[in-house]
Amino acid sequence: MKNYEICFQGEHYAFSEIAAKKFLGDSAICHPRETFDQVFQSVTDNNPPLGIIPIENTLSGSIHQNYDLLLENNVRIVGEVNLRIELNLIAPADVELYQVKTVYTHPAAIGQCRNFWKNHPNLEIVPTYDTAGSVKIISEKGLTATAAIASQQAAADYNMTILAHEIEDYPENFTRFLIIATDEINFGAANKTSIVFATKHMPGALFKSLSVFFLRDLNLLKIESRPLRGTPWQYIFYLDFEGSMDQKTCQNALRHLEEIAEFIKVLGSYPAANSLKHPVSVNS
Amino acid sequence: MKNYEICFQGEHYAFSEIAAKKFLGDSAICHPRETFDQVFQSVTDNNPPLGIIPIENTLSGSIHQNYDLLLENNVRIVGEVNLRIELNLIAPADVELYQVKTVYTHPAAIGQCRNFWKNHPNLEIVPTYDTAGSVKIISEKGLTATAAIASQQAAADYNMTILAHEIEDYPENFTRFLIIATDEINFGAANKTSIVFATKHMPGALFKSLSVFFLRDLNLLKIESRPLRGTPWQYIFYLDFEGSMDQKTCQNALRHLEEIAEFIKVLGSYPAANSLKHPVSVNS
Repeated sequence: MKNYEICFQGEHYAFSEIAAKKFLGDSAICHPRETFDQVFQSVTDNNPPLGIIPIENTLSGSIHQNYDLLLENNVRIVGEVNLRIELNLIAPADVELYQVKTVYTHPAAIGQCRNFWKNHPNLEIVPTYDTAGSVKIISEKGLTATAAIASQQAAADYNMTILAHEIEDYPENFTRFLIIATDEINFGAANKTSIVFATKHMPGALFKSLSVFFLRDLNLLKIESRPLRGTPWQYIFYLDFEGSMDQKTCQNALRHLEEIAEFIKVLGSYPAANSLKHPVSVNS
Repeated sequence: MKNYEICFQGEHYAFSEIAAKKFLGDSAICHPRETFDQVFQSVTDNNPPLGIIPIENTLSGSIHQNYDLLLENNVRIVGEVNLRIELNLIAPADVELYQVKTVYTHPAAIGQCRNFWKNHPNLEIVPTYDTAGSVKIISEKGLTATAAIASQQAAADYNMTILAHEIEDYPENFTRFLIIATDEINFGAANKTSIVFATKHMPGALFKSLSVFFLRDLNLLKIESRPLRGTPWQYIFYLDFEGSMDQKTCQNALRHLEEIAEFIKVLGSYPAANSLKHPVSVNS
């Protein structure tokens, strides 16, 4: 039996690590990295061979930095996993809610708790690099009037108290994570493909681009636009669609797209999160 | 002659204020607000009747919070203005570059200076609420080993030195700002329209939505997707297209879109930034 090794951004008990263990099993060896850049660099150096990155949250939206890094780096998407994100207000054991003046957490978590901020307008919100890292800061600095927003695992690990459970705006709070690698790794039958492309300068370019999928009954799952750096008001598009590049239909669609696109990069074909049992079999 | 009054997020000499004066002229009276929420609330209360918000930058991308606020609030877009963003590293007059350990600035400016961070890996980057506000913090707290990234106007206002000019990744660094109001205000002939919609659950829904414009030769200028809060993996779409809701063609396109969309909200028809002389005439 093989223990997978994977790196993630944040501190231990960050949601990325919890998602990595959901995907690979509890035996996975998870290596923390400070930044997303470092996760991509580590995977490029095969040290470790796998990385996990959050790509979108159902309340706060896409993590655009990781879309940009997928374009810039030579890695491929080999899997995905969805994780329910339960956000908790966490403080040292002797602190009560009315004593909290400042809250540390990651900007994504800030965007997922807007109703909580509206109901507690006097709290000062301080953005940090990580949810679990915010708990770590409070613990290490011995802060008193300060709380963090993070996972219950992070609270337990630092012997802290949860002052308020599940403070996210909606219970339908999921983050989708991508597993990245430089080698082809097969975690199951690929049925989803991600690409990025820029269109040529022509009328109706985006409409024509989507038509190559529609005309072949290939379902689009997501579209995301990002600015084309250096060319104001031009965009690149990230598309997820059903199907694998092993299939003739998908190959035909992309050959058709080449007629319309300035460039195309296939980010990977992989098993969609909802088509896999977790953790994935280590022998698959 | 009428002096327009307008509110913006940030401190005086924030890029939003500079953009407001480019649009309305130097006689405009600009009121700072702490948050984008407060800008929308002030405009809703007609106090003042106009607001300005950044909506996208050509390097760092869209400002998604303002897309969300356009959906949630009853305001209309009445104008837009593009501003070239020159970012400067600013410190108190006696501080030299090698002495700087920490840099304060807005997250958007952080994302526009990635090459600068790569070349200065030892700088600690601290996200703040505003570019000009970062200069203000350094001035008020008398910080020494700290610099801000902001406009040259902000440096001049606080008697600080520019240690490095135009440190953004590309000179093609523009931010597009929207002017919002509750009343209809005419700043010129409307030739651009912004809408937001969600599609019904049907195959090829996005393709069919874009077809209502393509079939009528209406050019799409931008598409932006955001999560539909409360319904995981479903999206709403923001579209900008050429034309005004005064025109029959645009009305027909939206009537067609109603057959495909679950809901549609017209955010406004207004003169595109590139079709206006600035400042706008106060009598137009």
